Amino acid sequence: MKLRELGEDRLLARLLPSLPIHKGVIAGAGEDCAVVEKPRGNKLLLLKTDCVVEKIHFALKTNPVWIGWKAMMRPLSDFAAVSGLPQFALITLIVPAQRSSDWVKRVYRGLNRAAARFDVSIVGGETSSTRGPAIISVSVSGFVERNRFVARKGGKAGDDLFVTGRLGGSLRQKHLRFVPRIKESRWLTQNFSVHAMIDLSDGLGADLPRLARASKVGFNIDNDSLPLNPGVDIDNAISDGEDYELLFAISPRDRNRLQKEWRNKFPKLPLTHIGCLTQPLNGSTSQLLPGGYVHFK
Amino acid sequence: MKLRELGEDRLLARLLPSLPIHKGVIAGAGEDCAVVEKPRGNKLLLLKTDCVVEKIHFALKTNPVWIGWKAMMRPLSDFAAVSGLPQFALITLIVPAQRSSDWVKRVYRGLNRAAARFDVSIVGGETSSTRGPAIISVSVSGFVERNRFVARKGGKAGDDLFVTGRLGGSLRQKHLRFVPRIKESRWLTQNFSVHAMIDLSDGLGADLPRLARASKVGFNIDNDSLPLNPGVDIDNAISDGEDYELLFAISPRDRNRLQKEWRNKFPKLPLTHIGCLTQPLNGSTSQLLPGGYVHFK
Repeated sequence: MKLRELGEDRLLARLLPSLPIHKGVIAGAGEDCAVVEKPRGNKLLLLKTDCVVEKIHFALKTNPVWIGWKAMMRPLSDFAAVSGLPQFALITLIVPAQRSSDWVKRVYRGLNRAAARFDVSIVGGETSSTRGPAIISVSVSGFVERNRFVARKGGKAGDDLFVTGRLGGSLRQKHLRFVPRIKESRWLTQNFSVHAMIDLSDGLGADLPRLARASKVGFNIDNDSLPLNPGVDIDNAISDGEDYELLFAISPRDRNRLQKEWRNKFPKLPLTHIGCLTQPLNGSTSQLLPGGYVHFK
Repeated sequence: MKLRELGEDRLLARLLPSLPIHKGVIAGAGEDCAVVEKPRGNKLLLLKTDCVVEKIHFALKTNPVWIGWKAMMRPLSDFAAVSGLPQFALITLIVPAQRSSDWVKRVYRGLNRAAARFDVSIVGGETSSTRGPAIISVSVSGFVERNRFVARKGGKAGDDLFVTGRLGGSLRQKHLRFVPRIKESRWLTQNFSVHAMIDLSDGLGADLPRLARASKVGFNIDNDSLPLNPGVDIDNAISDGEDYELLFAISPRDRNRLQKEWRNKFPKLPLTHIGCLTQPLNGSTSQLLPGGYVHFK
């Protein structure tokens, strides 16, 4: 059945019963606002929103379950970047009226699965029709302990730079099916002092300069050390984007213990020392990388 | 200059300095997540997201400042509906690459003005290009005191139904320039026991049945009592939508005091007794109204 025939109230009635809801939700989808308990203890609130746009972030023929998965996981990757835990998600679905309700249901299946993977409750949302491409926007709130929040700033000259996983070639499949590094990030801040961190969404070539600028330092990367996905070259690893891996800065004093404990804890996920932060050169970064994916270009 | 030529980082660099930022913001736009202080005391968190879509909620030729204003005020109207206070907003801007950066700047001027009106900080956001119509999605978090949260449910048979302001004809101008009834809603819950409340976004004909269904009661409206905007008829008042006025249920014992104190407090804004909630008839609502605006139709 087409959305045009179904209408919003009946669409919501079909979707709402299957939404994942965890503790702390006082009023979820169906109220004017979602109402939730605030986190206990000495914690900070985290807020993030992100979206996927048809023909930009996914194709018309993409499996809708993976579209939903990606739409949820993108903002969750930003929680990994600051070492936070996501809790509550709101979904905005903007869909052409002639799209089938089955397509929407499958998108929600992906959203639900991705949310459930990290105990995230879907507490509300909004639907609208459009005369253009479909768009799924997901905004997520959660928390981080005050002493575990990691920003882009905070990196120091001399810090080691590490990346998780492998880079490049994400468009083949990983950009739809990735799992945000929340578990890894939480483990890192529980066991180490991470000075600065970012998730690689636009590619190392765009995101490393952002971390360096925020930290007011330069950087030096050993290109040959970059962990490559099969079949990609160094340019891909730097520029493709959508890796959703973590890049972080940590004192070289922690290098050996980090590498050893990481191998024990996450034996299947590489952790690679790719370079270091340096003194800033005239306030600019010390090594120019090719650009990552630049929006609007 | 077109967005295509400007690029995302430079666009953000132009927009960020003018964003309204109030207390409680630890890290705003520019970090991977916004980081904010949680509310103190016995409060609940409120989360809401909403969007405006070109050709659906605004026209290509609409003044971009009013587009931004409307995009911010729509979710804030939902805070009014539950008697909450909004605090932090995230903006998602999805715009064709050939759109001018001046258009975006003017949209942000409207977003900023609307946020500042209610002391809301804009703490982050996301930009993406699209091959379709422009979309502005705004998600807002805030709080409500635990004993002042008003839901759609909670209305009782016999309750009086009141609406603020006047209904109908919103498309002429009000749908772009309305001010959410946050101040009025906060005053109501400070001084009265409001049983159930909703903001009229889809029209009385759609929103009143939602309140009644959630409260498991029927309703009875005196159509001739409806407060009409100039030049509209009763059908407009019921079906046009986008009134962004409050509809609420309150004990008839409070009627006289409410009407008197309201006139003193808000002399320029009508408050109209339009009917009452009734016993449910076979679990359905007791009076059929013409439908309000139905999405996807």
